[in-house]
Amino acid sequence: METEYKIVSIGTIINRENECRLEVDPQYQGAFLGLEQFSHIDVFYWLDANDNDAGRAVLRVHPRGDRANPLTGVFATRSPLRPNPIAVSCCRVLAIEGCSITIDAIDARDGSPLIDVKAHLPNKDETEDIRVPDWINENKAD
Amino acid sequence: METEYKIVSIGTIINRENECRLEVDPQYQGAFLGLEQFSHIDVFYWLDANDNDAGRAVLRVHPRGDRANPLTGVFATRSPLRPNPIAVSCCRVLAIEGCSITIDAIDARDGSPLIDVKAHLPNKDETEDIRVPDWINENKAD
Repeated sequence: METEYKIVSIGTIINRENECRLEVDPQYQGAFLGLEQFSHIDVFYWLDANDNDAGRAVLRVHPRGDRANPLTGVFATRSPLRPNPIAVSCCRVLAIEGCSITIDAIDARDGSPLIDVKAHLPNKDETEDIRVPDWINENKAD
Repeated sequence: METEYKIVSIGTIINRENECRLEVDPQYQGAFLGLEQFSHIDVFYWLDANDNDAGRAVLRVHPRGDRANPLTGVFATRSPLRPNPIAVSCCRVLAIEGCSITIDAIDARDGSPLIDVKAHLPNKDETEDIRVPDWINENKAD
């Protein structure tokens, strides 16, 4: 049985030429304590452009919209088309000022709703141990 | 301005002694195509036990509930207490049968709602380049 849960936006991703940062709503400033001790964060955001019945019903894609990539189930990709349009990217923190976090880069549309920020911890299995299909190495999975 | 979005459960995490797997709802079977080519997946789930006004209002915690760990903003942890109770874990895939994915291990409550599965791609910054505070190395961030 399908159950529904509620996600709220906690800020906005600014992603323009020469400007890449997270603007977190001021009510969450208390949640920043100690964040400057981490080099990387996991940035969770909502793929709002794909948040509609059609986008959420897609189960298979040619990754990156390239028909040279094999038709692939969305769980085997990081496609923005999926049942729940959530995205996460590991980003390097360059600066924190007030509720603004400047990051190195993110593959998110400017204005995307931010939904979470988590400390990024090293993954013991990385990187030599991760197996991916051949088409990934010429492209990317999303 | 706070905006709300809808997450739906797409299955359930089974996490018992000698049994660790994702039971995905059959309607999503089409999304599995090609998943067997990946050694690891990112498993997204909902921290439903903390999905209440009190849990979502917590901005600072002693990580892992241990007062020996410094009071820390939830964005600088992976605490289950946070504005949006989302969790993600990188898991090794052991077997896929129908809509059931057996994984090596996950730090999730048995019965947790599953909300997404994504192919895990190697992170170029891992692992020597990730900086974390000292308290992480004796404990964990959540």
